[in-house]
Parts: sequence; structure tokens; C-alpha cells
Amino acid sequence: MTDTADIGPEDFDPTDTTPTPAGWMTSEEIAAARAQLPIVYVDAIPVRVDDSGDVVAVGLLLRVNAEGQMTRALVSGRVMYHERIRDALLRHIEKDLGSVALPQIPASPQPFTVAEYFPTPGITPFHDPRQHAVSLAYVVPVTGDCQPQQHSLDLAWLTPEEACEDTVMVEMHGGQGALLRQAMAHVGRLG
Amino acid sequence: MTDTADIGPEDFDPTDTTPTPAGWMTSEEIAAARAQLPIVYVDAIPVRVDDSGDVVAVGLLLRVNAEGQMTRALVSGRVMYHERIRDALLRHIEKDLGSVALPQIPASPQPFTVAEYFPTPGITPFHDPRQHAVSLAYVVPVTGDCQPQQHSLDLAWLTPEEACEDTVMVEMHGGQGALLRQAMAHVGRLG
Amino acid sequence: MTDTADIGPEDFDPTDTTPTPAGWMTSEEIAAARAQLPIVYVDAIPVRVDDSGDVVAVGLLLRVNAEGQMTRALVSGRVMYHERIRDALLRHIEKDLGSVALPQIPASPQPFTVAEYFPTPGITPFHDPRQHAVSLAYVVPVTGDCQPQQHSLDLAWLTPEEACEDTVMVEMHGGQGALLRQAMAHVGRLG
Amino acid sequence: MTDTADIGPEDFDPTDTTPTPAGWMTSEEIAAARAQLPIVYVDAIPVRVDDSGDVVAVGLLLRVNAEGQMTRALVSGRVMYHERIRDALLRHIEKDLGSVALPQIPASPQPFTVAEYFPTPGITPFHDPRQHAVSLAYVVPVTGDCQPQQHSLDLAWLTPEEACEDTVMVEMHGGQGALLRQAMAHVGRLG
Repeated sequence: MTDTADIGPEDFDPTDTTPTPAGWMTSEEIAAARAQLPIVYVDAIPVRVDDSGDVVAVGLLLRVNAEGQMTRALVSGRVMYHERIRDALLRHIEKDLGSVALPQIPASPQPFTVAEYFPTPGITPFHDPRQHAVSLAYVVPVTGDCQPQQHSLDLAWLTPEEACEDTVMVEMHGGQGALLRQAMAHVGRLG
Repeated sequence: MTDTADIGPEDFDPTDTTPTPAGWMTSEEIAAARAQLPIVYVDAIPVRVDDSGDVVAVGLLLRVNAEGQMTRALVSGRVMYHERIRDALLRHIEKDLGSVALPQIPASPQPFTVAEYFPTPGITPFHDPRQHAVSLAYVVPVTGDCQPQQHSLDLAWLTPEEACEDTVMVEMHGGQGALLRQAMAHVGRLG
Repeated sequence: MTDTADIGPEDFDPTDTTPTPAGWMTSEEIAAARAQLPIVYVDAIPVRVDDSGDVVAVGLLLRVNAEGQMTRALVSGRVMYHERIRDALLRHIEKDLGSVALPQIPASPQPFTVAEYFPTPGITPFHDPRQHAVSLAYVVPVTGDCQPQQHSLDLAWLTPEEACEDTVMVEMHGGQGALLRQAMAHVGRLG
Repeated sequence: MTDTADIGPEDFDPTDTTPTPAGWMTSEEIAAARAQLPIVYVDAIPVRVDDSGDVVAVGLLLRVNAEGQMTRALVSGRVMYHERIRDALLRHIEKDLGSVALPQIPASPQPFTVAEYFPTPGITPFHDPRQHAVSLAYVVPVTGDCQPQQHSLDLAWLTPEEACEDTVMVEMHGGQGALLRQAMAHVGRLG
């Protein structure tokens, strides 16, 4: 599931405190459009790398959902009207990891994959009951101090091998566990 | 510019004869949303390849725009609600090249690039006055018989070198010339 | 392990019946060089796709190794002097799957990953006791009739989900199981 | 042409002052092997990026070749036996740009392209009279202080648009100009 798994479908991204510039849709208008159009998203997998660029840790956000379950999530969010993908990546990483995370946004717009979140389960590995989201996915090294923001309880750093374990997978929702494994495959560190 | 360059902004894709399934937006609703949300697109660069997969020709659609100018275009179009990217690619290629084009849709969803068409020129190399489109771009080999459909006058097959010439670039609009060159760079055939 | 796992290190690729053009190294010379230089390889993951390009089956070669164990392998082999990567891919696929496999060699030289097989285990997920091989890995759809050749007992077609199961992984050697999973991740079909 | 264009074919990389560990080939042995085996290379395109990851400048090495001509070159060099690609990238960038260039080596081993340098011109866009080199090419952001080393006269930072100009292309050799343009296409900045 894209965005925070603990947020109900009637409530669009209340954690997003970015002021809405003139011309951007209100939450209500987006709620209507998202029932009828695919919505552009980005997914970021925050990682720590060593001097050779090898991934040594993956950052996962810990949250408690409406049912009181502990869940883990990637950095994820919508691309806004007139916003570049790279700016959306930067905005969502700062929103979730803080303003001094110092992410290395990729120079190339080529994502490592595209996650297609469908409102109907089973069409792809990705599912979001609220909408059809087409999410461009990137691995993003962060070099600064990362702090969980807003609704997140914690930010846990796992080794690539730990991050791919089944015990982690069951705590991720909407296919983000599969996306995390795809990311580790892309960096050559699939457990 | 995404889609057919000869179509006015008030008129959404009249060349698209695909029946609209229940739940999909009407042209009017899309016209409203496209002024406020990025729209998901696909761009396909149809190519002929030899037995080793090397690109030998690129297919460009010829059209006459509202000003009577001859223009060249890639296969391009919107991804609909609840439609997979690979199905959108197949649909638009059949729409523009006919039902026996026999495209080899890529096995991987990873595009070679993402073209961000902005309504404001100059932010990226891509421009579409009608909307903010985020377009996933793929090189697609076609092995069947290709015939220009609907508003296209012709389908011209050029060598990669010819396709990258400045005389071709000036006949392409909205940055599709740049996208074509990016595609040829991706297949190792930039002129 | 690159190439056929059942072949001893003293014996370079006896299954390769391609005549050696003038100027190419003899088996003995290659044996010397491979102890001191990284050797260029290709790995191909043969797949069947549907009309939308979605992978429906993966082809794995079955062989019996020197210890009498059943093993599964990808199509893999060396790139020769003055041979293009796309020609090496075509040659090895025809060598292992027959001359009417009709592979769709990728238009782009960009591999989905690079597998670094080290003679020392543990440096990367890939290991080959005979050599340091740098292998460019591609997913290659095949549309024709595929028949196991030479030392292979059979060619088994598995679904992507079956191919990623642990029972299949243990029958693959040198990290090719990890490479197969990376390939399935790349096409969005990691089980 | 891979490596430094000003170095004669009889003289293998004299600028490389890395001590040769036991088991690595001598220059003479490599000279023999390179006449008969494809050699594994890396090409790095050093870039400066802004906070959003957008490329703002490309670094090109200036050298004078044996004919007294000014030439421009990318960072390029051989991958050694038992050396990982990411370590080879790091080594060559430090060799050419100094030890405080602070390169961001990519987390993924997937190159943006593979440049096949043939000893015979015209087979691919890449040519190296000394050898058949298979070069994995990466765009590498550098954040530190870069200083030209050894045989280089200078390190010039050009905008992506300047770097793609024909006047720059003619100063690059062996197809590195084409590779530079491919890199700019990959980062969405082809002029």
C-alpha cells in the first residue's frame, strides 16, 4: 500500500504538511480523481552505503496502524501537479526522515522498477484499496542524520539480509515487502 | 507534446476509439483533472531489430497539425484507471500501428527513462501545453505488419542515424525529438 | 558458477562446438589467462512471455554433475575476442536451447545486473572456483521450439513463483539461484 | 578509446601506480592476453549534481596526446583480477581526480550502458586499436575537491549542454564522445 498504511481511505495524507500552492487540488478533489485516474507516486528505499557504494543498511519506518498492529513502511508519496519527480523524492524523504537526512537523489530519472498499486488485489504484487497508484521506485542513499517524523514511531536500520527476511515481510503491507526485495535484488543484495 | 500534436487542448484524444469501461472518466472529467494532477502516460519508440536484437529502423508517425505543418510523432498515450502499463503500451501501439504490428512488450516494467512533460516550457526538455504528464518510455520492437491508423498520414521507417538528424528533430514537438535521441542512446545507436 | 557446473576446471567448455576463428585463444591459453584476468561472460535467463510481455515461464537446464547430483542452470558462457555481447548471447542460447529457440535478444546493451563470480566464495553472492568472471545478465524471451542440447538432460519450464522456491534454489550453483531471483525481481515477478 | 588516449599500445597504463598484488598479471602478460581476450573495463562520467540530483556539470580530463593534440577523456580503466567493479570504479576515480574527490559510487551494479571497444573500427561506435574492451559505464557524482592527476593537464567542468557540443565531441576519441552523450541522455540532459 502506498503512503502510510495506517491512514483510512477517507483521509488523504494528513501527515503531509506541505502548504498547497495555488492551483493544486484540495483533498476532496483528489479523493474524487483518485477513484478514476491512476495517480503518480514515488517510492524511495533509504539506504546507508559504504565508500564503495555497497548497501550496508536499509531504513524502514515503524508505525502503528488503526488495528494497533506494528507495521513497517518505505518512504512513499504522491507527485504533485507541476512537481518534478526528483523534487517529489526529496520532499517525501525530508517529510519522513527529517530535513538533515541529506539524500543522494539519483541523477537519472530511470527508476529500478515501477510498482503498480491496484485497488483490486492480485493483478500485480501491489495493492492499495484507496486508489490506482503508479509508483516510480528508487534506491536513495542518505548520508545525514535521519529521524522519524510525525506518525512514525521509529526508523529502524536493518542489514539487507535482515530486511529480506520473512518476519520483516509480514510487517509490510500492500506489496512494499516485495518492492523492498526488488530493491535489494537491484543493488545485488537480495538475501 | 504527448499524444497527437494536431489535437487541440479542448479535445481529449478523439482518435482513441477504445470503448470506455464503466468507472472510467469522461473526457470532461479528465479535462478537469489534467489541470490539477500529473497524468500517467506511456511513450513507445517502435523499432525493427535484426536477429541479434540490434535496432535497424525506427518508426515515426507522420501527421499534419492544425497549422498545416507536417509533424513526426512517437506512439504515446494515457494509462487508464485500472490498466496495467504493459496493457496501455499494447493498446496504444495497436491504436497507432494496427492490430497486427506484433509488438514485443518489454518483460520488465523498468522504463529506459521517464519523460516529464510540463505545461510550462523549460522546466524539463518536455512540454505539453495541455497538462503535466509523467510518461514511462520504452523501446518496443515490432515484428508484424504496421499500418498508420486514423489521423496519421504515414509511418516512416528511418535508420537510427537518420532518426537522430536535426532535420527530423525539428519536425517533432514537445520534446519527443529529445526522447527519440534518448532512446537511440539507450540502444547504443545515437547518431 | 558460470557455464556448466559439471565440467572440471581443466576442461574449458567442451560443449562449445563453435569453430575457433584465427586469433582466438586455445583452451590452454584461456586456462592461463583465466587465472589472472577477469573473464567477460553473459548470463541469459530464458523466459516465455504472454502478449503483454508478462513472464509466464522460466526455462532452466537440468544436468547431472560429476557427483551424480541433479543440478539446474541458466544459459551462460564466455564472450569471445572480437564478439559482440549480443552475438555471444545469441550463440550461447542456440548452443543450449537449439537453433530454433528464436530468442528476442534485447535491443539495449544495458544488462539488468552484472554478476561478479569470484574464485573466492563470499565476496559477492556469485562464486566460480575456476575463475573471476564478470557476467552481464539479461532476461531473454524465446518464442520458438527449445530443446536441451549436449550435456543437458532436460529443459524445464517453471512459473516465476516455482522458479523462486527454495527447492529450486538448492539445485542451482555458484549463485545462479540468486541471479534467477534478481531476474524475477527485475520483471516484477519475484515470488 | 579506453584509458588514456595519449599512451601507445606497447605501454600498458604507466599512469597506474597501484602496486600489483601477488597473482596479478604483469604488463607483458596483459599485453599478450589483450590481443586474444575481451578485457573488462569501467568508464566513469564524473558529474556535479544539485540537491535534487540534477546534473549541473560534467568533468572532462584534458590531455595532450603523442601528436601534440589536446584531447578530452572520461575516467576509464581496467578491472583487475579479484577486484569488484565498484572497487575498480573507486580506484580509477581516485587515480584520475585525486583522493578527495569523494565519489558516490552507485549502489547498483547495473551500468547505464556497456561500451564495446573493438580493435576494428565501425563494428560498434567504440574503438580501441590496442584491444577488445568491454566497458561497464556509470555516471558518478563527485562531491569533493577534484584535481587532475599525473598525465592530465586539467579537469574542465562543462554544463551538460556544453559537454554535448560538436566542438567537444571532436576532442574525444575512440567513441568516448558518444558515450558521454549516452550518459547525458541517461540523466535526461542530452543537449
